[in-house]
Amino acid sequence: MESAIPVHLQCPRTRQKRVPDDYQPPYPSFVARFQPAVAQVAMAYFGLQFRGSMTAQPREALAGLEQAFSAANAPGHWDRASHVDEAGYTNIISIAYWDRPAVFDAWFAAHGTHWASGANKLDGCGTFTEVLRPRMERFETLFSSSERAEGVAVVSAGMSDVVQEHAYWGGARDRMPASQTEALAPAGAPRVVTEGLYRRVVPHDNVCLIRSGQDWGDTPPEERRMYLEDVEPVLRQGMDFLRDDGLAIGCFANRYMRVLDAQGAELEKSFGMSWWKSLAALERWAESHPTHVAIFGAAMKYLSALGPAAKLKLYHEVSVATTDEQHFEYFNCHDRTGMLRA
Amino acid sequence: MESAIPVHLQCPRTRQKRVPDDYQPPYPSFVARFQPAVAQVAMAYFGLQFRGSMTAQPREALAGLEQAFSAANAPGHWDRASHVDEAGYTNIISIAYWDRPAVFDAWFAAHGTHWASGANKLDGCGTFTEVLRPRMERFETLFSSSERAEGVAVVSAGMSDVVQEHAYWGGARDRMPASQTEALAPAGAPRVVTEGLYRRVVPHDNVCLIRSGQDWGDTPPEERRMYLEDVEPVLRQGMDFLRDDGLAIGCFANRYMRVLDAQGAELEKSFGMSWWKSLAALERWAESHPTHVAIFGAAMKYLSALGPAAKLKLYHEVSVATTDEQHFEYFNCHDRTGMLRA
Repeated sequence: MESAIPVHLQCPRTRQKRVPDDYQPPYPSFVARFQPAVAQVAMAYFGLQFRGSMTAQPREALAGLEQAFSAANAPGHWDRASHVDEAGYTNIISIAYWDRPAVFDAWFAAHGTHWASGANKLDGCGTFTEVLRPRMERFETLFSSSERAEGVAVVSAGMSDVVQEHAYWGGARDRMPASQTEALAPAGAPRVVTEGLYRRVVPHDNVCLIRSGQDWGDTPPEERRMYLEDVEPVLRQGMDFLRDDGLAIGCFANRYMRVLDAQGAELEKSFGMSWWKSLAALERWAESHPTHVAIFGAAMKYLSALGPAAKLKLYHEVSVATTDEQHFEYFNCHDRTGMLRA
Repeated sequence: MESAIPVHLQCPRTRQKRVPDDYQPPYPSFVARFQPAVAQVAMAYFGLQFRGSMTAQPREALAGLEQAFSAANAPGHWDRASHVDEAGYTNIISIAYWDRPAVFDAWFAAHGTHWASGANKLDGCGTFTEVLRPRMERFETLFSSSERAEGVAVVSAGMSDVVQEHAYWGGARDRMPASQTEALAPAGAPRVVTEGLYRRVVPHDNVCLIRSGQDWGDTPPEERRMYLEDVEPVLRQGMDFLRDDGLAIGCFANRYMRVLDAQGAELEKSFGMSWWKSLAALERWAESHPTHVAIFGAAMKYLSALGPAAKLKLYHEVSVATTDEQHFEYFNCHDRTGMLRA
């Protein structure tokens, strides 16, 4: 067992982790490990928003983005997912990860800046770009299995051994190196600046992003039935709550998304991604709101029944970004899109 | 809103509380407030253990204890509760509280020392005495209603205003003044010393005791049905787990008890009381073990459905005691009694 905080990012603490040094988690979990030379990553969400079915222009734009992801300075990994939002719009989001911000910057200058600038003419579709560039101290990952990386972990050097800091509330904070010395409290409030159809968000300090996913592709029939009938409906209720009523508890936006394959067909993978006022607000919802207590209870029951035989794979990545690590822009999107609600 | 830590016990922190200063709990809770002159309390559990029905001698011993609770240096409050343990023995425990240890010492010298010494001849019954004398820094209370005190709160000066540090995991620790500067980690292990039928426990540092109760006496019919049918069975399962299998997770003993009236009839009040290796072990069970997640989920569902109209009253008191604040002795008790399992 090892600490989720890699040795090279450990420092003298002024703040304590929540568990004693002899804490033994009740089941194994793993984190992504990066080469010590990696100082910062980039996570870029490129969204396309439309009603009804997609026309030729946006379809070509998606194909163009896919091509750009193979161009010079390409991301180390990308995937694509979709959801229908509360306003009835379909959102297809292409998510790309880089392990060097300078490479991302070069790529973005060549292929990314136009996405949500309004330069694209996409038959009335909306587009948005949401980028975080957290330093290594400011994000953490967690995986139920070390066999399949997702998200930012795909651009890592591989998985850790079993880590200590998980299976208790506050684990995400304790896995994040910055928590050794920082409260990660939010400062200020995000502000939307409107220039016609184009809107950008002036960020606040310590915004929090979580991408939390599940992959039921490997589950045998009985486990799949349990996931789809006993767990997924409870998860969906919680996701709907955050989407519709999250603002009061500090959740700016939540998208419960289905991952797509190269042809745009739905895979047996989903994730929730949500923007939060702070890590603390996310912690409070996760540990004490009835909707997440219900999700946790359903997941506990499921995992207790199956034990180590469970084939469902769970993962998440949580970032807490300073203002200079954030970039949000929206073109022709409806008012409840992403950080526009903030 | 105020801090659960009274002003006169606040000190410069070397350890942080888990929530930010602007944290707003989602519902009100209250703590017992003591006069600043109160530096330490005593909580004494006098147990009587027997199989089948009670005979004359133990009945007289209970009456004698009741009389002693009215004698000089009497406790400020006492109550009595019973349960049938996993070995099939009935345990009647008389629980008394003092707000001055010197007064307790005087009372104990006159009326208490003989209880579990073997001096009582009680038709083969077992007896035990379990005493904690925590300083104010080392215990905390929590009440869902400020209208009815229970346990140690009855010897307090009254209830606080709404407090901040509750409704999140780790709240008990954050309410305990010692947590401002101490990890409250256990040191050493308790050891049982046997002298014939008499056994005492040489304690370890930072043992943890919780008494956590519910009072459904004021609930109207529909709420009572919900409590008894939807919540109580889940609570009982958790209590049974701790009683039968708690040792592996640091719970030395758990008693799920029914409070008795002066005639020995059951009131509509119950509580769990359990001895733990450490506050951390209790925290881990409470926040992540399936049995308590189920209790928490059932309680959340119940309280969400009823809102502020709920008439169920909940309370607890948690102590973390140094070795010099503990006293355990057992006479003719079975091996699975209280701290004898440690």
